[in-house]
Amino acid sequence: MIYFNNDYSEGAHPLILRRLTETNMEQTPGYGMDPYCAQAADQIRGLCGNPALAVHFLVGGTQTNQTVIAAALRPHQGVIGVDSAHIQVHETGAIEATGHKILTVPGTDGKLHAGQVEAVCKAHYEDESAEHTVQPGMVYLSNPTELGTLYHKAELEQISAVCRKYGLYLFVDGARMGYALAAKDNDLTLADYGRLCDVFYIGGTKIGLLFGEAVVISNPALNRDFRYLIKRHGGMLAKGRLLGVQFGALLKDGLMEQMGRHANRMADQIRASLEKAGCPLFVPGTTNQIFAVLPDEALNILREKYAFTYQQRVDETHSAVRICTSWATEEENVTQFCADLLSACEKCK
Amino acid sequence: MIYFNNDYSEGAHPLILRRLTETNMEQTPGYGMDPYCAQAADQIRGLCGNPALAVHFLVGGTQTNQTVIAAALRPHQGVIGVDSAHIQVHETGAIEATGHKILTVPGTDGKLHAGQVEAVCKAHYEDESAEHTVQPGMVYLSNPTELGTLYHKAELEQISAVCRKYGLYLFVDGARMGYALAAKDNDLTLADYGRLCDVFYIGGTKIGLLFGEAVVISNPALNRDFRYLIKRHGGMLAKGRLLGVQFGALLKDGLMEQMGRHANRMADQIRASLEKAGCPLFVPGTTNQIFAVLPDEALNILREKYAFTYQQRVDETHSAVRICTSWATEEENVTQFCADLLSACEKCK
Amino acid sequence: MIYFNNDYSEGAHPLILRRLTETNMEQTPGYGMDPYCAQAADQIRGLCGNPALAVHFLVGGTQTNQTVIAAALRPHQGVIGVDSAHIQVHETGAIEATGHKILTVPGTDGKLHAGQVEAVCKAHYEDESAEHTVQPGMVYLSNPTELGTLYHKAELEQISAVCRKYGLYLFVDGARMGYALAAKDNDLTLADYGRLCDVFYIGGTKIGLLFGEAVVISNPALNRDFRYLIKRHGGMLAKGRLLGVQFGALLKDGLMEQMGRHANRMADQIRASLEKAGCPLFVPGTTNQIFAVLPDEALNILREKYAFTYQQRVDETHSAVRICTSWATEEENVTQFCADLLSACEKCK
Amino acid sequence: MIYFNNDYSEGAHPLILRRLTETNMEQTPGYGMDPYCAQAADQIRGLCGNPALAVHFLVGGTQTNQTVIAAALRPHQGVIGVDSAHIQVHETGAIEATGHKILTVPGTDGKLHAGQVEAVCKAHYEDESAEHTVQPGMVYLSNPTELGTLYHKAELEQISAVCRKYGLYLFVDGARMGYALAAKDNDLTLADYGRLCDVFYIGGTKIGLLFGEAVVISNPALNRDFRYLIKRHGGMLAKGRLLGVQFGALLKDGLMEQMGRHANRMADQIRASLEKAGCPLFVPGTTNQIFAVLPDEALNILREKYAFTYQQRVDETHSAVRICTSWATEEENVTQFCADLLSACEKCK
Repeated sequence: MIYFNNDYSEGAHPLILRRLTETNMEQTPGYGMDPYCAQAADQIRGLCGNPALAVHFLVGGTQTNQTVIAAALRPHQGVIGVDSAHIQVHETGAIEATGHKILTVPGTDGKLHAGQVEAVCKAHYEDESAEHTVQPGMVYLSNPTELGTLYHKAELEQISAVCRKYGLYLFVDGARMGYALAAKDNDLTLADYGRLCDVFYIGGTKIGLLFGEAVVISNPALNRDFRYLIKRHGGMLAKGRLLGVQFGALLKDGLMEQMGRHANRMADQIRASLEKAGCPLFVPGTTNQIFAVLPDEALNILREKYAFTYQQRVDETHSAVRICTSWATEEENVTQFCADLLSACEKCK
Repeated sequence: MIYFNNDYSEGAHPLILRRLTETNMEQTPGYGMDPYCAQAADQIRGLCGNPALAVHFLVGGTQTNQTVIAAALRPHQGVIGVDSAHIQVHETGAIEATGHKILTVPGTDGKLHAGQVEAVCKAHYEDESAEHTVQPGMVYLSNPTELGTLYHKAELEQISAVCRKYGLYLFVDGARMGYALAAKDNDLTLADYGRLCDVFYIGGTKIGLLFGEAVVISNPALNRDFRYLIKRHGGMLAKGRLLGVQFGALLKDGLMEQMGRHANRMADQIRASLEKAGCPLFVPGTTNQIFAVLPDEALNILREKYAFTYQQRVDETHSAVRICTSWATEEENVTQFCADLLSACEKCK
Repeated sequence: MIYFNNDYSEGAHPLILRRLTETNMEQTPGYGMDPYCAQAADQIRGLCGNPALAVHFLVGGTQTNQTVIAAALRPHQGVIGVDSAHIQVHETGAIEATGHKILTVPGTDGKLHAGQVEAVCKAHYEDESAEHTVQPGMVYLSNPTELGTLYHKAELEQISAVCRKYGLYLFVDGARMGYALAAKDNDLTLADYGRLCDVFYIGGTKIGLLFGEAVVISNPALNRDFRYLIKRHGGMLAKGRLLGVQFGALLKDGLMEQMGRHANRMADQIRASLEKAGCPLFVPGTTNQIFAVLPDEALNILREKYAFTYQQRVDETHSAVRICTSWATEEENVTQFCADLLSACEKCK
Repeated sequence: MIYFNNDYSEGAHPLILRRLTETNMEQTPGYGMDPYCAQAADQIRGLCGNPALAVHFLVGGTQTNQTVIAAALRPHQGVIGVDSAHIQVHETGAIEATGHKILTVPGTDGKLHAGQVEAVCKAHYEDESAEHTVQPGMVYLSNPTELGTLYHKAELEQISAVCRKYGLYLFVDGARMGYALAAKDNDLTLADYGRLCDVFYIGGTKIGLLFGEAVVISNPALNRDFRYLIKRHGGMLAKGRLLGVQFGALLKDGLMEQMGRHANRMADQIRASLEKAGCPLFVPGTTNQIFAVLPDEALNILREKYAFTYQQRVDETHSAVRICTSWATEEENVTQFCADLLSACEKCK
């Protein structure tokens, strides 16, 4: 079985595992107070071009979303996000577990628009009984989105401007940011994220780390006592240096970009084959997640050899699936998959 | 600097790191649904002699405590523990974060007694306005305790009996269980924990894993939907197999016991030197944590070369400190430390 | 200014205030352990024809919703409700404050359908990664709904059947239940609620009490330790007998039904005038809330003399408003309002 | 049976009930936005001599404590209080329900000392791993205390100074403040509370209101969005004016002081009889709560006619009880009780 069902099926990129091995028997302080975390934080500040940023390393995405949102909001506030947002649909209520409502708006291919944020805020502040409703306190979005689409700089600037107008924190979940940064139509740099957001994170788990997410905070109000919050949410790793060592390797010599470009190129090959096979994209995209519509018959053939993720029924004979490449995807598997895809679709005609 | 300040200063035991390396590029399902986790769970069930036990793998201790306690209690219930319990003093309110009070009783060298549990329950149920107070729902203890002391089988049996009498869950935090199991005066087996507790965990972080805690649940009521709870608390690792691979190696061929015995033997050497130097133990013990009272002057000398953890002032010229050995402690460092200890104490006379 | 904006603008019905006055200087135990609460609970059990029901008295609706839902759900569970549900839109996140997500579905004139509940449950249990999502644990609906519409017996029976099939608690918010029971097209009795729901409440605040909601629990699992939950949520009134005294009077000699019928009749007069004036209903209804579409010009005229609640813009020259009658609405004010309405609409033609 | 077991056995003072009756059929806006609440808030600002204070009215004490504390603290912060504090022992975990730990220190006759607050803060900020522990964010105390003792101005000034030094909010629970203000050894005015605290409340439930607590906030940071917090905790009364009407009457023409003086005088008579009977006070006091040690035999005799509250066993033949007077205590009952007390104690000799 060849797995195209997600981007975390393997362990770590060999260069990252090597660094863990090289440093394995060193003694360091725990809980992220070690030189490796300090150095990786400096690398991130360097890449963002802003020495004033605060950087914290956490283990996983749900934990990170929960910690950041709980740190930011007062009890009566909620976080605005699209209805397909990871925090809304795939975290078993981890945000509500901290007492906060998610204020959802309908997404367009997974994306939130500045106008929607403005509309939520206006409706709230114009409501005579506003205090009977949850006050918007933060905007959450992910880039790429859950549907693999990208925000461009102009969009993020507009959202950021609305957030500042209404006193909302802007939080970008970058669980797959490495793939976004490497996308051919990307125009956002790490420096832009640092400038436009109050907080964002660079995901490591899905781009070649064993685990790890690097939270970057540009708003000092949000950074206040942030380590207490990490601990309170069970996110402070005893051997914290494992995060520093891994991020240090990920951000050295362009390794993250190299992995991102590889995965996106593999995905492009699949997208090209889908087009050739007459299978439309369910959602257009340029990153490592492909959402495509295939004949059910073809899916049944492909399923014998390949794993991918079922999304939803499209019509009586077609379904949408997610096909996912990664830093670890082998080109020969993609070539084979493309051939099998064409052949399976041929049979269904 | 030589670190005796904790048992998580290094990475993983080489055999464990080797297994991570060997399996690194394999593709497996995520979130703990892989064959390595299944196999490690089987090993644990085998060691406990009970094929009906449920096993879950989490990343760290605070997260595990938070998830287990929140899974067990109804909203109006609290957890009984000693005043020095880890959940009470070192988790930044992670239990209260889930809405539950910790009902503390004074510990004796870090230990809870069955009579104290009984007294709390009796007082509660005899109170005419019981419903104005928090209902006891669980007992939490750790073995070894925060002060390195051990519970013996008779004690755990008594506590277990009181818990069953009053309908309380019994939860044993085994963050350092490997050191307890290897202690010369230990009389509790994994099978005993499985029999006497509703839930316990075998800590990996402090005994040679990069990270990881194995939760063992013998009470099916508590296991119901437990994976939802893990996810809700941000404890479900994407590359979950890392936990299965590591625990598989830890529990193979007696590696955990071997590491535990080594650390305890190193600690015994230090305890012997302390006695020779005339430094009393602050708390007696047989595991890898040593709580000792030293002259401040001696501590100042030792601090130049060794790291340990300050506990508290004892009198005007003496303080209590924690000295910690581990699976990774090198014998030559212990020998050197013992010599330096004797010499430092000599100078203070 | 004459207020048609809600049904809680006045104090208590004179008969209820009289009972409070008559009993004022008596000494009774606190916290609802008094004979008046016991007697009112008996009256409710009698009206429901079920001596096994548990009855608790709370002060207000948000508090009641929060307490009941938090008592019912395990941490990873959520409550299904329509998007216009009071708990979703008008309680400042009081449900999320207890850690629970509201799983919303689109309402039809404020009503939930059994098929929607079934669809949510099927989707959840068929999802391979169900444990990454919130588990449905309860259904919440109010009767009448937020839009003044009514559930009929067949509908509640269908919803109840789906709830039992999937192990969901069924909770009916009866903040305005007195008006539902008195509606001409109502076919649900208190006995039906007791039989079909696990828990429901009879609202007092909106039908002539100073305050108070009577929670009726038919499922003993949910009643377990319920008073602890009331206290924990700050809902246990010291002078609890005030609730028993008031409900005792409300449920004696048909006072509640009499008040409900009066209010509904007043609303019918307004509905008739709206029809005569050519103003369509925004939502059809038979209870004391009228949702109607009026010309903005007419609204501006009426606003000088009458208070009502703005709902939303319908088109460029029309808006929807809520007009509310109550037990206290004076017929002469309604007659005057109807005349003014006809005259205002006439002017706009 | 004559009740001396608490100060909330009756309904409302007749003057207060009269005002409720007089205003009963008026129409006002809901949720505390009515002229009666505005006027009562003005009366309180006047009594405090500070027009800048914010005033909110809530229904009960637990709800008020929960709302104020949750409004004040960030998630990782806790509230310092004595081990006998109401929030610690008699609120079924209502504070923990909002995610916050209570940091307890031993009380002296129910009182907290400035030095204890300072010690907690120093220990926290000097701890190298402070972020693994709960950060102090607020001090909670009640005046009178749970044991009926009083803080004097110098004490409150010292506590206030420590709070300001360490950035803690100071919160005074005044559930029985009317009795404190009327005590013969009281030297604290409402103006002092406004000046020394960030927030305090004047209890109404225990001094002649049906219910109601008036929260006074002097720190604008804490007042921000406070009404959202009230609503979120289920504390916003629909017919909010009931609170304004009652507090308006309570604070007019010295009614509260008059009721307080009466209750304290009744308690003084009982204290004098206790002395005469040779029964020592368990805790000395000057307010309406009497904590006394009596022979068990005498208690058994008195119990046939009088209700009081058992506190704890003192020795084999003596117990401590709480005897409580109130605004409603009738002098003839006190006279009779004193006679019966002397006679019962006589018999036990």
